Parts: sequence; C-alpha cells; structure tokens
Amino acid sequence: MNAKNDVERILMSHGGGGKLARELIERELLPVLADETLAQLGDSAHVTGAERLAFTTDSYVVQPIFFPGGDIGRLAVCGTVNDLAVSGARPLYVSLSMILEEGLPLSDLRRVVRSVKAAADEAGVRVVCGDTKVVEHGSADGIYLTTSGLGRVPDGVELSPSHIRPGDAVLVSGTLGDHAIAVMSAREGIAFQTEVTSDVQPVNDLAEALLSAAEVRCMRDPTRGGAAGILCELVEAAGVGIELDEKSIPVSRGVRSACDVLGLDPLYAANEGKIVAVVSSATAEAGLEAWRSHPRGRAAAVIGRVGKDRPGRLTLRTLPGGRRIVDMPMGEQLPRIC
Amino acid sequence: MNAKNDVERILMSHGGGGKLARELIERELLPVLADETLAQLGDSAHVTGAERLAFTTDSYVVQPIFFPGGDIGRLAVCGTVNDLAVSGARPLYVSLSMILEEGLPLSDLRRVVRSVKAAADEAGVRVVCGDTKVVEHGSADGIYLTTSGLGRVPDGVELSPSHIRPGDAVLVSGTLGDHAIAVMSAREGIAFQTEVTSDVQPVNDLAEALLSAAEVRCMRDPTRGGAAGILCELVEAAGVGIELDEKSIPVSRGVRSACDVLGLDPLYAANEGKIVAVVSSATAEAGLEAWRSHPRGRAAAVIGRVGKDRPGRLTLRTLPGGRRIVDMPMGEQLPRIC
Repeated sequence: MNAKNDVERILMSHGGGGKLARELIERELLPVLADETLAQLGDSAHVTGAERLAFTTDSYVVQPIFFPGGDIGRLAVCGTVNDLAVSGARPLYVSLSMILEEGLPLSDLRRVVRSVKAAADEAGVRVVCGDTKVVEHGSADGIYLTTSGLGRVPDGVELSPSHIRPGDAVLVSGTLGDHAIAVMSAREGIAFQTEVTSDVQPVNDLAEALLSAAEVRCMRDPTRGGAAGILCELVEAAGVGIELDEKSIPVSRGVRSACDVLGLDPLYAANEGKIVAVVSSATAEAGLEAWRSHPRGRAAAVIGRVGKDRPGRLTLRTLPGGRRIVDMPMGEQLPRIC
Repeated sequence: MNAKNDVERILMSHGGGGKLARELIERELLPVLADETLAQLGDSAHVTGAERLAFTTDSYVVQPIFFPGGDIGRLAVCGTVNDLAVSGARPLYVSLSMILEEGLPLSDLRRVVRSVKAAADEAGVRVVCGDTKVVEHGSADGIYLTTSGLGRVPDGVELSPSHIRPGDAVLVSGTLGDHAIAVMSAREGIAFQTEVTSDVQPVNDLAEALLSAAEVRCMRDPTRGGAAGILCELVEAAGVGIELDEKSIPVSRGVRSACDVLGLDPLYAANEGKIVAVVSSATAEAGLEAWRSHPRGRAAAVIGRVGKDRPGRLTLRTLPGGRRIVDMPMGEQLPRIC
C-alpha cells in the first residue's frame, strides 16, 4: 500500500477517541449499517429478548502487551465489563477472540490467558466462548484480543444523556490519566519520579453502588479520548453546557508530573478503571459517599456542574481562575493505548 | 521475536482447524479459563437469562480480503450467523469490531462495510454494536474483523453429539470445498478451468428447515478443517463410528479439478455456507427433501452413516471400494482461509 495522495486512506488518528474517529464512524459506518441501536453509539447496545440485555464489543491492540499495573488480557476483560456496567447492565458473560502472531512466545500467551481469567473472576463474569486465529510473523504485533460482553439490564434502569438537567453534578470515580501514562512509560522506557501504574480494573461494583445511592442520568467509561472526549459527547448529545472545575479534578502526583514533562493533558488521557457519571444535584453527595466508601472509589470527586448556558459546550474553570473551552480531541494523544 | 529454539512459540498451524489448534486450546486455554460452557467448545455457547441464549465469537483474518463470491465482511457476518444457527439458535444480533491497518484505502473499508450490511440483511440479523482500532502500517494486513453473535434458542431444541445413535444418517447441505478453493485461487492468482466461487452465505434458514423436518441430533459448521475436521470431533465426542461414502459426497467439478491439481482433499477444505448434520435414520429422507427444496440446499446429500463399530473413528468407503481411516487434520491445509 503506497501512500498515494489520490486515494483516501486510513490514518492512525482514525483509531483515536476524537473527531476523526467519530467522522469515520458517522460517515462510513452508521449510514451503511443503518441500525437504530447501533446509531446510539452507546457503550453497550441494549437489545430485547424476554428481558433487556446489553451487548458490547471492543478490540484491544495495546502496545506493549504488558505494562505497569496490567496487560492486554486484563484490559480486554475490564474494558468490556466496564462498557456493560456504565450502560447500567450487570455484566454476565464475555467472549474472547484472539489474533496471534506467528512466533509469539507461548509464555506470553499463557500470561495473558491467566490474566483474562483473573480479571473475569474479579468482575464476576464468565468467559463462555472464544476463537483463535494465527497470522504470519509481521502481520500482527504479538497479540490482539477482541472481547464481547453480555449483561442484563435491571428493571427500572434507564440511563441516557437525554436525562441530563441543568444543576446536575458531574462525578468521577477516581484519578484521571493513570492508564495512558503507565502504558506510555512502558512503551518509551521513560521512568517518572513516581511510578505510575495503570488503573485497569472492573468497575461494575462501582456502577451498581452509584445506581443504588443516587439518581443517575448517565455514566460513561472514559477510555480513548479521556474524560474530555466523553464529556464533549455528552454535552452535544444532551444539548446542555458543562463547566468543570480544574482544582477538583483528581490527578495523582505521578500522572501530574508525567503530563507536565510530556505536555499532555490528563483530561484527554485514557483511563481503564474509572467512571464519569452525571447525577441529580440532590443525590450528588450520596453518590459521592457511596463511591468514597468503596476501595476502588476513594479518590472520587464532583468535578463539574451542568448549566443552561453554552449548550453543547464543555468549559473548564482553570486553576488561575480563568475559563476556557475544552474541545473534542482530534485524534488520540497516544496511539494503541487500548 | 527471534525464532530461538529454546522458547515455545506460536506456529501457523496453531491457527488451523486441526490437532495442533485443538491442543493449544485444550492445554493453554481451557484449564486456565475453567468454564464448563466454554469447555464444551460448541459453535455457540448457550447461556441462560430469562430465556436460553446462544453467544458466539470469531475473528476473521482471511487473505485476500476480497475473493470470488465474497469478502471478509460477508464472511464475518455469515460465519457468526452460521455458528449460532448450527447450535440450534435463531440468530438475532451481531457485533462488529475492526482492526484496520494504517494506509488501508477507505474504498476497501466502504466495500467491506456495505458487504457486512448486505449479509446481515440477508440473514435477518441486526448489527447493534461495534468498535474500530487502527494499528500502524505493517502491524496488520489491511483489515481484521471480529464478529460476535447473539441468538435465541427455541424451546425444545437440544442439539448435542451425545444424542448421536448407531443408524443415524450424516447429511451435508451442499458441495464441499468451494470457499477454500475460491480463496486459494484469488491468493495465488491461479485460474482453474471452471471458476470456483466461495459458498459464503448464511445458513440459518437451512438450519431451521432441517429442525422442522427431521429429528436432528446435532449440526456443525464445517469451516477450518473442513467436514473431516468436524466429523472427527463428533465421533470422538459421541463415542461412535461414522462411515462416509465417497461417491455420495457432493463436490463441484471446479473444486474437484482444482483439488486434483493442487493435491488437496475437499473433505478437509473449508466451507462457509454449509451444514453437516446428524439426523435420525427415520427422518433422514424428510430432512434431505427439506434441504433440496431450498435454494441453498439443492445439492444436499446423505454422505454417511453412524455405526457401532470402531467408536471414535471416521472412515471413508472410497470410490474404488476400499476403506480408509480419515484422520483429524494436523493444521490447516491453507492458512488464513477465514
């Protein structure tokens, strides 16, 4: 494939969580596939059998496949569990499909499969079906995984950006950017003053805790494109404005200093074990307490408010006291982060 | 990754439908993932919600991505629909996850996505969720797809090799080997006397027709490893012997002559739009008629019988009148056939 100028081609940024990825999906996929459920672009599709089911899929191409705090196996299970969880579903079953590169050490495969099992047990889901394909050396990069997930949507749970109202609070379940910085340090061999480990973990228990404690409008899994990416989508979908308060956004010391050095913004950096949620003003404190009393949610915080002004805009009240617009990222800051 | 001799590594044949692939799954995956449903290694996992659901996944790495009679998009939808169908389920929903290589012409992507939609419509399923990842040029081979599928298992449908009884008939819904030969001719630029096109098609209507007309013990989708591969699995799982009758095995003229030239055996060659079924002796004729009266099943045939002798053995009564054992293939005759 020569990069001839007269042919439109796939770019790395088509794979990020930003505008170009969105354009690719909206122009090339949705009009052709023409399905109303698919077109909602939710974290999971809700479909109806005798009961309401949630169905989701994601491929994982993270490089390197082992990084501080996790590996591609743990990532693949948690990513799919979390997509189900933030849609309001109880994750039940996961499928595992692997594309292996000829020459991959079996010890790497074993480590990844053990990690898949451990993460599934931690999340309380079963891996019930799978597939394995092998491609020639040079036609993949060690191992690519695709997981799909199936969950049950409890009666009464209806999450949607359309439920967001002025006055609602924006919550995050913990510090931002840990996954992106951990993968980056592993990839580039950069050592930061404080070692950063990925936050990759299942958050279905956190999602259930919030649903029990608060009036939840919607939840999102801030992976590619980070918290900024998914909040930009929410303000657009809900036709509201959201103002974030920079000083209340939890970021670990290690991530903060790594971002300073690298010129990255933790708001755009990928997470793999966090929830961003919008809840009613009246139940924000109760929701926050529910998260903070949970081991995975100790650093939870209210990071912003929904307003009537500037519908479709995400703004940030900065530390110095100014205010700036937070835009949808164009592509991913870091390719192959998940 | 250097091919050092002291490290166990993934081989191309680990990706075939044969013994080495089976060993990889049985030694490296099943003991670790430890799930009773996964361990059944069915075409689909049957799970229970308020009703019985079937869940399946497959990755597709076929090379080239366009071949006579189809492309990777049609293959990915049909493969998953067919896995659900042969397990006795009615396919309902499909997920689509794509790994794209940087530099892929957008026109190729568009063609594949249109093909996904056309195949989904043909099968009567909806594509309800998806994902897109992009990897650097050289880290994939154009496009890899992973589809998962969700179906409903009708009340009363219980298919299992354990239901197979001596005297049962082995049916195939049409000619064997068309997919493998079509892909091979596209890949190698070989022109055969008669052009061979892939049989890639959804067979959920054929599966339903057979279930209505006959007492079905079990059905299988003879993809990688071909009809021989899945029949070897069945005789082992059921503890019976099966004798095939070579003269009754439907093979098109084009496939026959291509196999002669290439030294391939159509029994081991991959199919992507066929069903191999075991049905009770008393209902074999009715099942065959149901298939033959269907546009996708005109070449259906009874190709063998289940016997008491030689449990665990698949044998072939050859054209000259001899009898030979048909072994499980070691690897795939043709890598990256699906």
